[in-house]
Amino acid sequence: MSRFLSTLYRSHSLAPPWALALLLALAPLSLARAGEGAAEAQAFAQRVAQESLAYELVTSLTTEVGPRLAGTPEEARARRWAVDKLKALGFSNVRQEPFELPVWRRGLEIAEITAPFPQPLAVTTLGGSVSTGPEGVEGEVLSVATVAALQGLPADAVAGRIVFVDEVMTRTQDGSGYGVAAAKRRTAAYAAHEKGALAVLIRSVGTHSHRLPHTGQMRRVTEPGDNPGVPAAALSAPDADQLARVLARAGSARVRLVLTPQQRPAGKSANVVAEIPGRLAPQEIVLVGAHLDSWDLGTGAVDDGAGVAIVTAAAKHLMDAMPRGPARTVRIVLFGAEEVGLVGAKAYAEAHREELANHVIAAESDFGAGRIWRFDTGVGEGARDAALALAQPMAVFGVVPGNDRARGGPDLKYLRESGVPVVTLLQNGLDYFDLHHTADDTLDKIDPDDLAQNVAVYAAFLYQVANGGELYR
Amino acid sequence: MSRFLSTLYRSHSLAPPWALALLLALAPLSLARAGEGAAEAQAFAQRVAQESLAYELVTSLTTEVGPRLAGTPEEARARRWAVDKLKALGFSNVRQEPFELPVWRRGLEIAEITAPFPQPLAVTTLGGSVSTGPEGVEGEVLSVATVAALQGLPADAVAGRIVFVDEVMTRTQDGSGYGVAAAKRRTAAYAAHEKGALAVLIRSVGTHSHRLPHTGQMRRVTEPGDNPGVPAAALSAPDADQLARVLARAGSARVRLVLTPQQRPAGKSANVVAEIPGRLAPQEIVLVGAHLDSWDLGTGAVDDGAGVAIVTAAAKHLMDAMPRGPARTVRIVLFGAEEVGLVGAKAYAEAHREELANHVIAAESDFGAGRIWRFDTGVGEGARDAALALAQPMAVFGVVPGNDRARGGPDLKYLRESGVPVVTLLQNGLDYFDLHHTADDTLDKIDPDDLAQNVAVYAAFLYQVANGGELYR
Repeated sequence: MSRFLSTLYRSHSLAPPWALALLLALAPLSLARAGEGAAEAQAFAQRVAQESLAYELVTSLTTEVGPRLAGTPEEARARRWAVDKLKALGFSNVRQEPFELPVWRRGLEIAEITAPFPQPLAVTTLGGSVSTGPEGVEGEVLSVATVAALQGLPADAVAGRIVFVDEVMTRTQDGSGYGVAAAKRRTAAYAAHEKGALAVLIRSVGTHSHRLPHTGQMRRVTEPGDNPGVPAAALSAPDADQLARVLARAGSARVRLVLTPQQRPAGKSANVVAEIPGRLAPQEIVLVGAHLDSWDLGTGAVDDGAGVAIVTAAAKHLMDAMPRGPARTVRIVLFGAEEVGLVGAKAYAEAHREELANHVIAAESDFGAGRIWRFDTGVGEGARDAALALAQPMAVFGVVPGNDRARGGPDLKYLRESGVPVVTLLQNGLDYFDLHHTADDTLDKIDPDDLAQNVAVYAAFLYQVANGGELYR
Repeated sequence: MSRFLSTLYRSHSLAPPWALALLLALAPLSLARAGEGAAEAQAFAQRVAQESLAYELVTSLTTEVGPRLAGTPEEARARRWAVDKLKALGFSNVRQEPFELPVWRRGLEIAEITAPFPQPLAVTTLGGSVSTGPEGVEGEVLSVATVAALQGLPADAVAGRIVFVDEVMTRTQDGSGYGVAAAKRRTAAYAAHEKGALAVLIRSVGTHSHRLPHTGQMRRVTEPGDNPGVPAAALSAPDADQLARVLARAGSARVRLVLTPQQRPAGKSANVVAEIPGRLAPQEIVLVGAHLDSWDLGTGAVDDGAGVAIVTAAAKHLMDAMPRGPARTVRIVLFGAEEVGLVGAKAYAEAHREELANHVIAAESDFGAGRIWRFDTGVGEGARDAALALAQPMAVFGVVPGNDRARGGPDLKYLRESGVPVVTLLQNGLDYFDLHHTADDTLDKIDPDDLAQNVAVYAAFLYQVANGGELYR
């Protein structure tokens, strides 16, 4: 569809002409009346909910590839896995869209209280951290409640110390506790460096109480600054509790820290793209995404093997149900290098800049494998009702209409900022931050029934937006 | 009390003469009629249940000492902690009773699948394992369901391979799944050595699904044999699942393993002993025990800081309630070097051989911090009813009478075998093997209310046996 025609339809609130053609050509799939299309979408999704393809996909990815850190040979193996799998499933135009990025790798990570109560601490290095060198650093611990509190201290109160940011994350169903907590992870090392600290320890950005610390990126790997930060690691929650107790009992504590990560200036990554070509309006793109890279500690099952499996399986079921293709093109994008700073997301937006006006709507699955319970929209003001109507066939799966502030997922940031309409099929994230960025992010944490519900809801979404005529702008 | 008198009382089923004196001297504490004494014991225990001393003790031990592996300086620190604490609480005859033992220490522990799907595996070395050397070993994996299956294989099917014993442990409330599972841990390395294997990996002896493998002793550290075993480690449950999936998908897998534990021939340990001297029959000993050492991965909160805290707090409350002392001596024994093969238990039994006939009854708390739900007895046949009656004041805490096959706890093995009557105040162990011998055995896993229930039940037990006249033989 030309831009001219798109503009015309939008300004006149008309269905585009191919929608009429669809109505005539594919009577059982007609979406001329919303309720009717919704009923068909629901029936389709209910069939899809019986399938186990997504669980097979995430099992395959996490077993045969495992951890796949951005820019490493492991991520390259994940891309080969994805290309092979997408081709075998029958998708079209399966390809890698390469880009470059700096590459960070974990080294040794050792921490211990040396005085007054010597004992080891479970830590993991934060992504982007500089090295302490193999000799490590040792110093008095300075505990602060928040990064803001650290920033408020005079430099001579901080200089030469190991700062401990002991801020607790709140457990919520919608993940709203993460923003505050992740800010600590992203900024602590630089704030500590400004005050002359030796190193920084943060209480893990997480919600469980196991000896499994949470890694995660500090500043984006693509955005180096003048301030390199101090060596930075996260303590597991029980270790943060322990250090806080030691400080409370003894009044002071010394910690020794050895972190030896390495940074290479340039490495390779890519987004993996596959399509179901549209039959009537192939240039109009419905994008479903997830990210293929993972942190290196776990096997990336809930973050984001589940997402890869969900969107791939939903698209595959749509393709099988419509052998002649949906009206619009469905594009799967498995983003590379999400964890280290949305590098693949930016590369996609740049590579497809000319095409973004034809991106009808986009959704990303990147919040684990919990059941979808809410449908949020991020569309044009006049398109809100039409977008909300997409939730109708999802009700049977327990999904309720949500707010109009959807961000669509991390990898959709640059698309959304360019005007691409997005939706969020919001998963139950109550337990997500028990696993997120830890060694514990493994296949056993995924409930196959919950995963199948996700696929069904994505299928209901795809069925409607790939065949309907709405532009959502 | 002389052996002659003990024998006389036993054969005539009479209360000893000091019981009559007690009846006259301490009317409110009279146990002349069982029901009456039980009512007093219950009232005492209900007061005790409001106290928080045990939680304070286990917090102090796990924070100020932390991990305390047998024979190490850390265990010595735990003994100093215990001596200081027991003296400060007002106990008498606080002392260390030293013994020697070989000392094993963990080194590096690295495992990875090298082919066909390269990825790291979370492992921990089993106690007593020999080293692979810093270069490690690499070989094809041979999966067996049980050690018996391994023993049934011809040597040429095993030689040069890394054996993987993939046996799953059953979760039970009474811990009965542990015996079978621990046998795998104790014997696999030696069975593998007999067949010429390179190394052995076992599925962790545990019941959770976190990336936290379970350590534990193989053969007792004091009983070296001609067969040194092969290097041996436990995989976490998700890693065992992963290795099994890789084998199922690919038909074969290669693993590389680096384990560099060290063994020293002789080190020092000790049992820590404290008493409330008996007022009427000081030579008659009621023993409550726990073990002071822990594995090195966690801080030994549920294994067995909780037990140390429970028996110490229960005895302290009894001491405070009876300023002139109970009729019999109450002896707290905090055993050293339990984890590596009941070394302290044996040393105690040998050092106190002459005195064992005067050990009236013994109980050990070494099954975590879950609520006590059953009272099992291991007493003389004729003493079963009297022993069961001890459960009467425990009913209000949810404790039911159990079987007559009590073993009393691991450190009571040699006492029991020497004829000392024992009881087991059985805790709810449904979750115990989620934590047992892992890095996750930390203070946050203890519920203060559950811990207080334990103290109350031990207090009810101690009140009755320290003041009653029964011999339980």
